Amino acid sequence: MDFLKEGERLDYLLAEEMRIIQSPAVFSFSLDAVLLARFVYVPIQKGNLIDLCSGNGVIPLFLSARTKGTITGVEIQDRLHDMAVRSIEYNKLQDRIKMIHGDIKEMPQVLGYGKFDVVTCNPPYFPTPSRDEINENEHLAIARHEILCTLEDAIKASSQLARQGGKVAFVHRPGRFLDIVTLMRKYKLEPKKVQFVYPKAGKEANTLLIEAVKNGSPDLKILPPLFVYNGENEYTPEIREILYGE
Amino acid sequence: MDFLKEGERLDYLLAEEMRIIQSPAVFSFSLDAVLLARFVYVPIQKGNLIDLCSGNGVIPLFLSARTKGTITGVEIQDRLHDMAVRSIEYNKLQDRIKMIHGDIKEMPQVLGYGKFDVVTCNPPYFPTPSRDEINENEHLAIARHEILCTLEDAIKASSQLARQGGKVAFVHRPGRFLDIVTLMRKYKLEPKKVQFVYPKAGKEANTLLIEAVKNGSPDLKILPPLFVYNGENEYTPEIREILYGE
Repeated sequence: MDFLKEGERLDYLLAEEMRIIQSPAVFSFSLDAVLLARFVYVPIQKGNLIDLCSGNGVIPLFLSARTKGTITGVEIQDRLHDMAVRSIEYNKLQDRIKMIHGDIKEMPQVLGYGKFDVVTCNPPYFPTPSRDEINENEHLAIARHEILCTLEDAIKASSQLARQGGKVAFVHRPGRFLDIVTLMRKYKLEPKKVQFVYPKAGKEANTLLIEAVKNGSPDLKILPPLFVYNGENEYTPEIREILYGE
Repeated sequence: MDFLKEGERLDYLLAEEMRIIQSPAVFSFSLDAVLLARFVYVPIQKGNLIDLCSGNGVIPLFLSARTKGTITGVEIQDRLHDMAVRSIEYNKLQDRIKMIHGDIKEMPQVLGYGKFDVVTCNPPYFPTPSRDEINENEHLAIARHEILCTLEDAIKASSQLARQGGKVAFVHRPGRFLDIVTLMRKYKLEPKKVQFVYPKAGKEANTLLIEAVKNGSPDLKILPPLFVYNGENEYTPEIREILYGE
């Protein structure tokens, strides 16, 4: 375990199939990322996938269990990019997952326009980082607030990277739903599939999964709701299946 | 029962509290209308409410059980307007519900701009009435297709009728969700509350309930999902409660 740096842990992904490096003080992946990696359409046999705002690489790692295609992850924070690279090496996936340390806004120019079949993004959720509110931990602040990447940056870059007919999937808070669909349509991404995630029955949704098609025709479907916890505050069977493959 | 015309029935509303005139050949109210009447915010003690595209008056009748305010219904089809008027008289509600036989597009001029606390609308759902597709029964066709009233007509009129901070609630198909929110924002109605209705667990949503606030600030909430049928194709307890007050 000497490849782990201070404060890092090697956690399980998908039961015991995979491992991922995390650090509570720097970055730990969320259920939202896992839900996005399972929600998005993926080509099974081959394809060119890219994940923006990758953090410690959780979405590329999950996607690699669903597709034999190649996956690119982009992360702007050096410390998180480094964790992702080591997790990918630990899982011996470096021939299928490539991490780029860079700014998603520059990726269309770096990687080419319209080259990707699938784009995923779990962007920072919080739009207004005032000096008081902002997380004092810089790593967590950048991951959570729109400091280096606004929602519009993420949607614009996703659209530029996606091929005609390619899929672009985001996870976000329902409060930003109207902003997301407005921005998606502005950048020629037509929302096609939405799923709301509810913490439990009887509660308002707290997570939104949305998939759009580059230059697609309008036809939105609202998928069955997903509940995270049952009445006893245990994960529901659906969530256990997604998290642990049970 | 000699006040019923040919083909008409006197059906129950809300268990035995109320009755409504219907006719399978002309117009029968749908579950969607009932869901809208129960979904929308209403002031309890007083207020000025209006229902557009009222059909046989089902929404005004339902609303009258939730508020002591005054309710106006607008229906363009003479035959349906006539059914609504007779139902209101049968229930002795003519001091609280007034039906107008007219075009919703003219109502802001007729009734005044910004005079209503609440506007409801269950508009025609189908946008493309080609000669082949269109329902051969003219009454049903006008009620179901955007022949005399487009979605934009309905949203524009609703916005003009609502006061600042007033509520505007629609029921529609999820496939039109993006059109609805785009049009609402165009006419200064900010969507605040959405509820998706699923025919049963595991199925895609087939109905959308949405409430906006005139000149409201952005803050969308996705309410808990509503399921119509259980696994045995019986109404769920929630729906029985809404329909029958059980």
